[in-house]
Amino acid sequence: MSKEKRDVIVIGAGISGLSAARLLQDQGQNVLVLEARNRVGGRTYTLKDPAFQYLDVGGTYVGPGQNRIIRVAKELGIQYQMVNEARRTISFRNGKAEAFDMKNSVPKSLGIFDLMDLNNAVRLIDAYAKEIPVAAPWDAPRASEWDSMTVQSWLDATCWCQYTKEAITIICRASNASEPCNLSFLFFLWGITVGGGLTRTMSITNGAQERKFVGGAMQISEGLAGKLGKGHVLLNHVVSSVEQSDDGVKVTTQNGDVFEASYMISAVPMTLLGRITFKPRLPSAKIQLIQCMPMGSVIKTFTFYKRNFWKDLDYSGIVFSCDGPISGTYEDCKPDGSHPAIMGFMNGEKARKYSSLTKEERKKVVCEYYAKAFGTDEALHPINYVELNWMDEEFSGGCYMVSLPAGVLTQFGRVMREPLGRVYFAGTETADQWMGYMDGAIQAGERAGREILHQKGLISKDEIWQEEPESLDIPAKPFDDSIVERLLPSVPGFLKLVVTATTLVAAGAIAFFL
Amino acid sequence: MSKEKRDVIVIGAGISGLSAARLLQDQGQNVLVLEARNRVGGRTYTLKDPAFQYLDVGGTYVGPGQNRIIRVAKELGIQYQMVNEARRTISFRNGKAEAFDMKNSVPKSLGIFDLMDLNNAVRLIDAYAKEIPVAAPWDAPRASEWDSMTVQSWLDATCWCQYTKEAITIICRASNASEPCNLSFLFFLWGITVGGGLTRTMSITNGAQERKFVGGAMQISEGLAGKLGKGHVLLNHVVSSVEQSDDGVKVTTQNGDVFEASYMISAVPMTLLGRITFKPRLPSAKIQLIQCMPMGSVIKTFTFYKRNFWKDLDYSGIVFSCDGPISGTYEDCKPDGSHPAIMGFMNGEKARKYSSLTKEERKKVVCEYYAKAFGTDEALHPINYVELNWMDEEFSGGCYMVSLPAGVLTQFGRVMREPLGRVYFAGTETADQWMGYMDGAIQAGERAGREILHQKGLISKDEIWQEEPESLDIPAKPFDDSIVERLLPSVPGFLKLVVTATTLVAAGAIAFFL
Repeated sequence: MSKEKRDVIVIGAGISGLSAARLLQDQGQNVLVLEARNRVGGRTYTLKDPAFQYLDVGGTYVGPGQNRIIRVAKELGIQYQMVNEARRTISFRNGKAEAFDMKNSVPKSLGIFDLMDLNNAVRLIDAYAKEIPVAAPWDAPRASEWDSMTVQSWLDATCWCQYTKEAITIICRASNASEPCNLSFLFFLWGITVGGGLTRTMSITNGAQERKFVGGAMQISEGLAGKLGKGHVLLNHVVSSVEQSDDGVKVTTQNGDVFEASYMISAVPMTLLGRITFKPRLPSAKIQLIQCMPMGSVIKTFTFYKRNFWKDLDYSGIVFSCDGPISGTYEDCKPDGSHPAIMGFMNGEKARKYSSLTKEERKKVVCEYYAKAFGTDEALHPINYVELNWMDEEFSGGCYMVSLPAGVLTQFGRVMREPLGRVYFAGTETADQWMGYMDGAIQAGERAGREILHQKGLISKDEIWQEEPESLDIPAKPFDDSIVERLLPSVPGFLKLVVTATTLVAAGAIAFFL
Repeated sequence: MSKEKRDVIVIGAGISGLSAARLLQDQGQNVLVLEARNRVGGRTYTLKDPAFQYLDVGGTYVGPGQNRIIRVAKELGIQYQMVNEARRTISFRNGKAEAFDMKNSVPKSLGIFDLMDLNNAVRLIDAYAKEIPVAAPWDAPRASEWDSMTVQSWLDATCWCQYTKEAITIICRASNASEPCNLSFLFFLWGITVGGGLTRTMSITNGAQERKFVGGAMQISEGLAGKLGKGHVLLNHVVSSVEQSDDGVKVTTQNGDVFEASYMISAVPMTLLGRITFKPRLPSAKIQLIQCMPMGSVIKTFTFYKRNFWKDLDYSGIVFSCDGPISGTYEDCKPDGSHPAIMGFMNGEKARKYSSLTKEERKKVVCEYYAKAFGTDEALHPINYVELNWMDEEFSGGCYMVSLPAGVLTQFGRVMREPLGRVYFAGTETADQWMGYMDGAIQAGERAGREILHQKGLISKDEIWQEEPESLDIPAKPFDDSIVERLLPSVPGFLKLVVTATTLVAAGAIAFFL
């Protein structure tokens, strides 16, 4: 193995690290990527098996607005498959399944108060999210108020109906793989800000879950690694120490290999940085930050069936639930419709609760839930069950992304992507667009690469952060609120209306009788 | 070095690990303690220097109710020095110092509303703390409500006066080295529960800060290590991996040494467990727990002066402040009055803010603050300045203890001290009395030791958790609320009173005129 001194060493061959390396190599830099696992891809991971061809047990979905991942996928010639939302969606609540047409209606069991309250909460969240500066959420006018509270405290203070709390809990689990009580309200809002709003982040069509890659998401990393070329990505290299001097950085791995470079980029989840011995030590604020950057809790499951039985029952395969073991499902099959499966996320406290079971026991829990949700025993007889518990992945620590607790963004956030001497920080958590997504991983990696180019005098400071042009192939279309959504008042608003009306009627009556 | 197989290996030669080892050795077990640092003591650390004889730059204070540390200190023949609270205390607020007699009065600048509001908050906190089961705070009737909120959200929802928020902020910093926005309200309350109430934990006389050890707190660990004997405590052994099999545990250090034992006890801060590779891996819930157990932020400072100038000005040396760089100070001198100094805690966000300065710059900030607080330029001319930034201590990660964010206790707390196969967990954070204190460290260590004795069939299950008899030398006396404290209503209570009175007067007047 060549011991030449490189320009830049990147730790982590996920999408972020590889994007950094690739940008740097394109600018003539000699780069080396060190990866702890025996594969590239990080939190994207595509299994290959004749039983299902390929399967994305990690990051999967992309959609309009995510212009960087769309750009890279196009360059690598990767095709898309649309996520199915045709047919009826199922809401599973209090042990009962209720089917409805997600595009044009809501579950019938919801009352007018439920709808008003949910509508109010959603509109407030979207309005608040717009107040947050993407690059500096800690500077939002109400940053310290929102960061002092969890999503749960906000719900408890704001919402009147149990249904609203359940719906926002599902959103927390779906978007952050975390519980409302574990998430800073500011962090939750910021995640919505950097994803272009709640509707964009939560939607399938025209939203973040619109499509996935034919052949799997790990192709992005494999493609980037391929472009870097042999000898520029070393697998099975677990970094144990990083030593900085005036001249450069010396990186040592667990098995004693030593690599030298002028600069380094860390593109691993920050919670893992505690494992690496830094000389000189990381500064106090950074040490404390990495102690409170827990990753989300998720077990991604795939239950394969002989046939797409939900289609015959006029179901899309989408089931969402707060009390069920799986917070959200999608239909998963190959572009030709083969290998039909239900993909289900076990998230947040459900993931932790069921993580103590065996795989067989979890499979049973999942199938029994699907049988109730779809109303058919056919769900009890899968032909295959595949899962990945991301909490057990030593070199991720959890998925999909960091779950910032209350107080972290405002107290420690400023140092998150601050370089330390010759060490720079990438990873999707340091993005300011689509933070937590594959798209954010690319933004963060390319930005970190350009920070080094700037440091070397190759580009100006203004060029470090670059806007990505809107994709012409997959443009983000605006969302129209339905008339109902715009006109529906909140529960307190409605009560005020009722009281005002009642008072006026009473006043009229009194005036009449006097 | 002997490679014989031990009964038990303990990781961490702080008070907790050494207490575990000592109890086990007393029961005939062959123990080995592996310590990463070049000293024992962990978060207690006594510097020796002719300039000040000795100095506790880590854990220091003990008081009545802490019967375990009192027992061990007695056994080791360690003497006490009382902490001084005689003379006037200083409250520093909005850039101004105000002296008052802490025992019999309050700062004069406080209005009746300030006092009512603070009294209400303090009484609520104490009443809530009593509702929490010490061994299982997650089972408190209102556990999920309190764990979903931070101390700051509770303050914002409950307190009417800015002064109350400042006072509770000082308490959070003083007791947890953390900010109200970073602490779960449930965790904050539990800390008070396990310390016998707010007054006990915050007081000097009859409280947790009543006394300190002549010669320093590290003597506890040195004494315990001495009793274990040579060859039973190995310094400079940084554990890198722990491998469990059916027969026992194999512990490997960074420099390649391998040790074997039947059982293991981890007595290091949980946030550091991420650095150790466990085979088999830690279970998901534990992996996620250790990602959200950040340690507090503190720089402990000592500013030495030629003479005890505050005494001449009739000050005790105690200054507390929310806006100043130092949240709380005590006089620090040797039992004979020599080496007079002011000990000051830079805590929470202040610690992080000032951590980026040089030591000389921090010294200047501290002295200028003392000059304003004590109202004398003499404070600007120290003869020595000693500090320890605990955030930079690689094998602590911060001090004094863990600062649990919202949602962690209820979501992850149950697995905190759950043994994993042959591995048991000590450390003050796993105590259910005086958690976070030296006393809790002993309780946790001895309990972990007895868990192994029980596993080996040497004691019964009932004997694992043992009550500690009340010390006869240093008994905990009850506190009497002052009459003012008992009778003072809260601000809302007062307003209700005012409104009721006004209404009655008005009703009387109306009745009179009709």
